[in-house]
This record gives sequence, C-alpha cells and structure tokens, in this order.
Amino acid sequence: MENRHCAIFGPVLTVVVVRLHAHDHPFCDDIMGTNDGVSSSVPASHTITIALIWIKTCQLPNLPPTFLRSLKTSKRASDIPSIRIWYNLRPQTCSSHHDSLPLPNRYVFDVFGTLFDWRSAVVREFKCLARDASKRGSNTEAMLSGVNWMEFTDEWRKGYGRNTKALAAKPTPSDSFPKLDVVHRQILDDLIISHGLHGVFTELELTHVNLAWHRLDPWPDVPQGLRMLQRGYMTSTLSNASVRLLVDLARWGGISFDLLISSELFGTYKPNPRVYLNAAELLDLRPEEVCLVAAHRYDLEAAKGCGYATVYLRRKGEDDGEPEINTPNEKIDVVVDDLQDLAVLLGCMNI
Amino acid sequence: MENRHCAIFGPVLTVVVVRLHAHDHPFCDDIMGTNDGVSSSVPASHTITIALIWIKTCQLPNLPPTFLRSLKTSKRASDIPSIRIWYNLRPQTCSSHHDSLPLPNRYVFDVFGTLFDWRSAVVREFKCLARDASKRGSNTEAMLSGVNWMEFTDEWRKGYGRNTKALAAKPTPSDSFPKLDVVHRQILDDLIISHGLHGVFTELELTHVNLAWHRLDPWPDVPQGLRMLQRGYMTSTLSNASVRLLVDLARWGGISFDLLISSELFGTYKPNPRVYLNAAELLDLRPEEVCLVAAHRYDLEAAKGCGYATVYLRRKGEDDGEPEINTPNEKIDVVVDDLQDLAVLLGCMNI
Repeated sequence: MENRHCAIFGPVLTVVVVRLHAHDHPFCDDIMGTNDGVSSSVPASHTITIALIWIKTCQLPNLPPTFLRSLKTSKRASDIPSIRIWYNLRPQTCSSHHDSLPLPNRYVFDVFGTLFDWRSAVVREFKCLARDASKRGSNTEAMLSGVNWMEFTDEWRKGYGRNTKALAAKPTPSDSFPKLDVVHRQILDDLIISHGLHGVFTELELTHVNLAWHRLDPWPDVPQGLRMLQRGYMTSTLSNASVRLLVDLARWGGISFDLLISSELFGTYKPNPRVYLNAAELLDLRPEEVCLVAAHRYDLEAAKGCGYATVYLRRKGEDDGEPEINTPNEKIDVVVDDLQDLAVLLGCMNI
Repeated sequence: MENRHCAIFGPVLTVVVVRLHAHDHPFCDDIMGTNDGVSSSVPASHTITIALIWIKTCQLPNLPPTFLRSLKTSKRASDIPSIRIWYNLRPQTCSSHHDSLPLPNRYVFDVFGTLFDWRSAVVREFKCLARDASKRGSNTEAMLSGVNWMEFTDEWRKGYGRNTKALAAKPTPSDSFPKLDVVHRQILDDLIISHGLHGVFTELELTHVNLAWHRLDPWPDVPQGLRMLQRGYMTSTLSNASVRLLVDLARWGGISFDLLISSELFGTYKPNPRVYLNAAELLDLRPEEVCLVAAHRYDLEAAKGCGYATVYLRRKGEDDGEPEINTPNEKIDVVVDDLQDLAVLLGCMNI
C-alpha cells in the first residue's frame, strides 16, 4: 500500500491520499457502507484510489474506525480491496472545513525534476557514450574509467542552476538571450575540460549528449496524473526549457499539455518575476488565478512573490541541501509527493 | 464515394485521394491482390481509406485497371468494400517519381476558417442572443427582426481582416498591441451602431457574444486529421488568435497540438513576416523546414515569402472573391480539401 500525506492549510486540515490495489478485502463492506461523498456506484475489479479527508483531530468523516485502523496497519497492496471509491475533494465539498481549497483552476508546471527525471536519462546517455568511446583505445578507456557519471551529471545540473539564475538576475531583456541548449553546452564544455576529458569525445558525440535533455522520461506518476488533471483544469508548462525543448520532451514522454510556456518567450529565465507575471498575462489571468506546481522552492517562492498559488511536488534528489518541508508555509500552499495525488485532491477522476 | 484531387508538383505528379466506405464489393479481391506498397494485412470490417498515386500518364502503379475503372464510375459509398488499404505516400516511396515530396515534417496551422468553422458558431450565438432580447418588448423585437445574422457575422469577420492587416503593417512592435478579443470588440461595437442596434443588447450580452470566437467547432475532418498527423509530425497553431483564445478553442473543440503559437507572442499580426520568421526561430528551424496549412492565400503567400512550405486547405466560404485554385503554383506547394487527405498524403495511418 502506498500511503501518502498531503498537508494542506497547516493547522486546519490534513489530507491523506491512499492508493489501494487488491482483491476481496474483509473491510470492503465497511468502505461501501459510507455514503457521504463516497461513490459506491463504481464497478468492482478496478484499482482503488481513495482520498480521505483526515481532520487534524484525527476524525475521519463518515468512515468507520476499522477502516482507518486498517489503513494505518496495512503494509501490503494485496491487503486492500479492488473497488474504486472516490472521496470527492473538490473545493465545495471541503467548505465545511475551510472556506475553499486555496487553489485556482489553471496549473502551470515546472519541467526538469518536477515532471521529468533528468538524472536517470542523462547518466544513461553518458554511460553509453563512454562505453563506445572506450573501445577506441586503452588510453581513452583509462581516462573514462575514473569518471562517476552520476556526479558529472549532477555538476552539469548545478551549472545550469547557477547560469540561469545569473541570467535571470539581469534586469532587462537581453538581446543576446541564450537558449537553454547553448547554456547547457557551455557548462558541458567546461566540465569536459575540468574532468580532463578534452578530446575524448567527438564533436558529434558532444552535440548528441547535449541534447539528452530533449530525451528525458517523465516520472511514473506524470502521464496519468496529467491526463487526470487535464480533464478538469488547464495545464501548461512554465519552464526554463526552450520552446523546442519542451515540444521534444512532451513528444518523447508521450504527454501533452494545453499549452507550452517557456521563459524563452520573455527573454529571461526563472526566477525572474517577469516570467511568472508575463505567463499569467498570456493567459488573460491575474497571478492569483494561476498555480505553479514545482519541485524546487526557489521557483515556488518567486511565483508566490508574484501572487501565484503554489504546490510543492516533492521529488527525491531535487532541492537537496534544503531542510525538509512536510507542511505548507506562507510560500507554499500545498505539499504533495505525487501528481496523481494532486489530481485526486482536486477531484479529478482516474477513469 | 468521396473523390478528392490533391494536385502536387504541377506537371509531374497528381495524387488522387479516395475515401471508400462500404462492404462486400466485388473488386475487393482485385485490391487485395496488389502488393507493392499496399498493405494487405489489415483486418476486414474497417472503413477503407485509399490513397493512390496517379501518375500524370494515367497509369496507376500496381493497381488493376478494373479497380481504377470502378473508382471512376462508382458514385455511392455503398459500392465500395470495407477493407482498409494503405498506399504509403511517404516521401521515400515517391522517390521514383520525384526526388521527394516538397513538404517538411513540421506543420503549423492557421485556425479561424482553416481548422474551425467560425461562421456557424457565431451566427448561432447571435440568433440565441436576439431571440432572448426580442422577448424584452415589441420595439426591440422590431429592431432585431430585420437583421441578417449571417451577413452581420461576415461583416464582423471582414472587419477583423481589415484591422489585423492594418496592425500587421506597422513596422515595429507596438507597445499597445491589442489582443484579438479587444480588436473583435471594437469592430462589434461599430457594427452594433451602424446596424441601429445601440442599446438593444446588455453589456453582459455583448461581452458574452464577443467571446463566441472562443467557442467555435472544428470542421468535421479536423479532430481525426490532426490526430493522424500528430503521430508522425509536429503540429502547432500559427494564428492571429491570442494564446488564451487558442487554449480555449482547443479545449472546446477537443483537439490538441504539440504547441500553440500565436502572433501575440511577437507583438504583431499575420501577415507581418516577423510572425513566420519568429515562429520558425522558436522551433529552432529554418523557415524552409516548416509548412503552413491555411485556407487563405494572403497568409500562404506571406509564409512562402519567408521561405515556408505551404499547403492550401480549401474551405467553402473562405477566400471568397479570389479566383479558384485547383493546382499548385509558385506560392502554394500542395492543394487539398480535407485535413485527413493531407494526413494520408503524408503517410499517416488512420488507426
């Protein structure tokens, strides 16, 4: 069983999203016996997804204590029944606990790290490249054998962070705004030299691996989570990736958005406020009507500074070095660990 | 039977795209007997779509003369068999007739008139509005009874053409670039006065009908045609509609693109060359690598002037007053009457 906590509203309300997959569990009848907000008209033999409102006082509304106990103690997916049940968490159903969920109905997403797992794909491509290059001679093989491609990739990514933040700090749009492929290549070239790998790879190989960022896989929860969200809400990227890079990533990952917004359109990079403000303006919305979903706090804090609603989608290996956040704060409205959980939280059905 | 001519390459090659829908036709076996380029592994009981290469010399390659005769003489859909057969027209299969199809593999689409039937939806909304307003009194009813909403809508659309062309003619980006909703509203307000309808509609009603352009239905061939094209090719809008308008139209029409490009991003309107050149630049492509599909020649001519490939998608009621075009010319590379025909022409399977 996956048991995920999504803390909203800090002191007022905590939402527990639980995914259940299995057959013929004894407390199935208990669940089906609860009516308020829980649909019992869904056919059997489906995967269960349940989102439960768990009031801070630990009273589960309209759900029997046995079920709550089972949730807490159940360890294995096979413990759980196979009937799909929905606890509708649309804002109006929460109104008795809080005026409304603090989220608007337009969602923009950070891409690298939030929706796509950049680390696995880039490391994989480096390893392929190194294996091929090693065959060219024992000298090259020796040079490459000492490289930790995971660390190399993390350094590349850190260089991206430093460079785009420096570009974002420039106050006015630069005529010579460099697209992200160019920024990536400059950092890569520096890393190749600092790791003593000059001349090891051909120009064609470097060009190819520099475009590895166009060939990332989405995190496993993303394709279905986005599809669920899109039924009820407008979705767009809001990314430092260039427009072309976003097109390639979406096609590669087999996912689609209503719109692709790139900071390239505004001649700067996140976290420059122009990106957030101009994106809202493109959508004919006030910033308060847009919600950013991102795995990095600097991004969410800049968005909140412009008036956005914010969802912190926690991803392992992103935001390293920052103290862990489990509950909302003044910059972060909602914390989730999974895009499908967010979709459920917003009342999007998994059909 | 629908029999559509798509003339390509002028003197070299003519492609006839034929759609066949029916069951148990006697020459079914003849078709299945042809192997070269025609897949016979498709299960029966499907709708047929056949694209035939018809060399100017009138020899159908590898298809029996009886079949060709049947195509020419068949009048009704029920005359035709139900097996789906594909003649792959990807460039490489045409290479014996011509070096390659003159089309690249990135497609951008004009929207109003090309993909969406603006006239029907806007007229429908006006008629609803007028019916409601007429109930307010015999005076209002008399004022509205004489209005031809089809002509009114056509005047609105002509006003759009005049105004956006005037805005496009301004040489530099204007700081006060008006979004299309604003342009539409100015024209509507003028028309209301010139038709003696001042005070007949409430402000709320005018605001609502001004946004009718966000609620258009796609032409019937568009949803499936776009889906087919997207399997093999990148698709984007290239429209004078604002970004938000494009988002709303795509969601309303239940269609999706890889990308939405609006002239709003470039602070001007088509046919200003900046729109075509900047759109290609956003895609990291040379203009020659992009193909515009549009139902208006002024748009295609401007795109061709920037180096684009061009497909003229003929739509009844668009480009009125222009002499009819049936074959390509120096500004138009391909002429089609249906988006699914274009998809077939480009080798996209209808699965």
